[in-house]
Amino acid sequence: MSEKSAKPPRRTSGPRSRLQVDERRSQLLELGISLFGDRSYDEISVDEIARAAGVSKGLLYHYFHGKRGYYVAAVRHAADQLVLMTEEAGARVEAEGPSVEGLTLGLRVFLEYVERHARAYATLLRGGLGTDAEVVAIIEDVRQRFIAGIVERLGVERPTPRLRTVLRGWIGFVEAVSLDWLDHGDLALAEVADLLAQTLASGLLGLDADGSAR
Amino acid sequence: MSEKSAKPPRRTSGPRSRLQVDERRSQLLELGISLFGDRSYDEISVDEIARAAGVSKGLLYHYFHGKRGYYVAAVRHAADQLVLMTEEAGARVEAEGPSVEGLTLGLRVFLEYVERHARAYATLLRGGLGTDAEVVAIIEDVRQRFIAGIVERLGVERPTPRLRTVLRGWIGFVEAVSLDWLDHGDLALAEVADLLAQTLASGLLGLDADGSAR
Repeated sequence: MSEKSAKPPRRTSGPRSRLQVDERRSQLLELGISLFGDRSYDEISVDEIARAAGVSKGLLYHYFHGKRGYYVAAVRHAADQLVLMTEEAGARVEAEGPSVEGLTLGLRVFLEYVERHARAYATLLRGGLGTDAEVVAIIEDVRQRFIAGIVERLGVERPTPRLRTVLRGWIGFVEAVSLDWLDHGDLALAEVADLLAQTLASGLLGLDADGSAR
Repeated sequence: MSEKSAKPPRRTSGPRSRLQVDERRSQLLELGISLFGDRSYDEISVDEIARAAGVSKGLLYHYFHGKRGYYVAAVRHAADQLVLMTEEAGARVEAEGPSVEGLTLGLRVFLEYVERHARAYATLLRGGLGTDAEVVAIIEDVRQRFIAGIVERLGVERPTPRLRTVLRGWIGFVEAVSLDWLDHGDLALAEVADLLAQTLASGLLGLDADGSAR
């Protein structure tokens, strides 16, 4: 028996209270997404956040080290939600492999999320908060996760430069279209999702299965 | 005879000296594009600009009201060059109307320009200078001019929401691909131009001539 396992178990706060802490944090982040989604960063004070959350300013500082940290954590939480919801929606109809239908469904969920957080999304993508390196990194991470998800579904081991380029370009297409759609609102969500899916499908059509040019 | 035309002509500095002023200003802006294209905004001092241009700091302030104004003017000058060169290149082979060849040629010139000013281009598009409203407006203006140029060549009077969306998305595609290409450099310029042109062509294929969905 090793010395380590011979030790009596350390008394910790246990899984239940850990879960409670995570839940509390998660609730605070949900509130942040909602607050920053409605109004701009500058309009929202730490006092208001604390009031809305029913917690002390001290607790907010304890969890997030201030308003900027709270904002960045909320952006990261929203980014995680966005990627997860989009991928789950696609996966639900993709039991038999990737399909344009699965892609379209994922894009609908993506656009619903974007519409629900229109202001925050537009501010983030237009760099309205300046060059916060952490926020820029989160946005880039979302792009890379969407690309990795598609590459994985395509069953490609290692994307060729051309496949990577097509996917990266398509993400740029999606972002530009989303912003234009939020600005103008003159196309139905389902029509935008179809357009985005078709664009990727025809971009991939010019490539062989391994991502080389045909 | 009107009173106005009866007046003797005012003595002005004349067209020649006006041209000289424009030329001098233009030379200073070319220098700015070259300086800011090589290194970041913060690395370049007004002293260095004045020294490189062989002019006094006073003259720089007179023309551009300081470093920020000089930078913004250089960005605007570069934007004008980029749009003009791209459109001229396409127009050279488009005597008989718009073609994928004309588009591809325009895109090659675009990518050459982007490659030549790689650092400045990437900084601008990634919002590396924060939210300077004037710079953001110049970037958006470039996008709108490219879109207007394509709409005009397509002979469309008033783009439908769907055509506008496809074009705006494609501009996002071009920007994302350009940045990826500058980062990785693993595709030939001609191949990237082909990919961009094909993407627009297949995006437009799904639309009727007036831009409505087929």
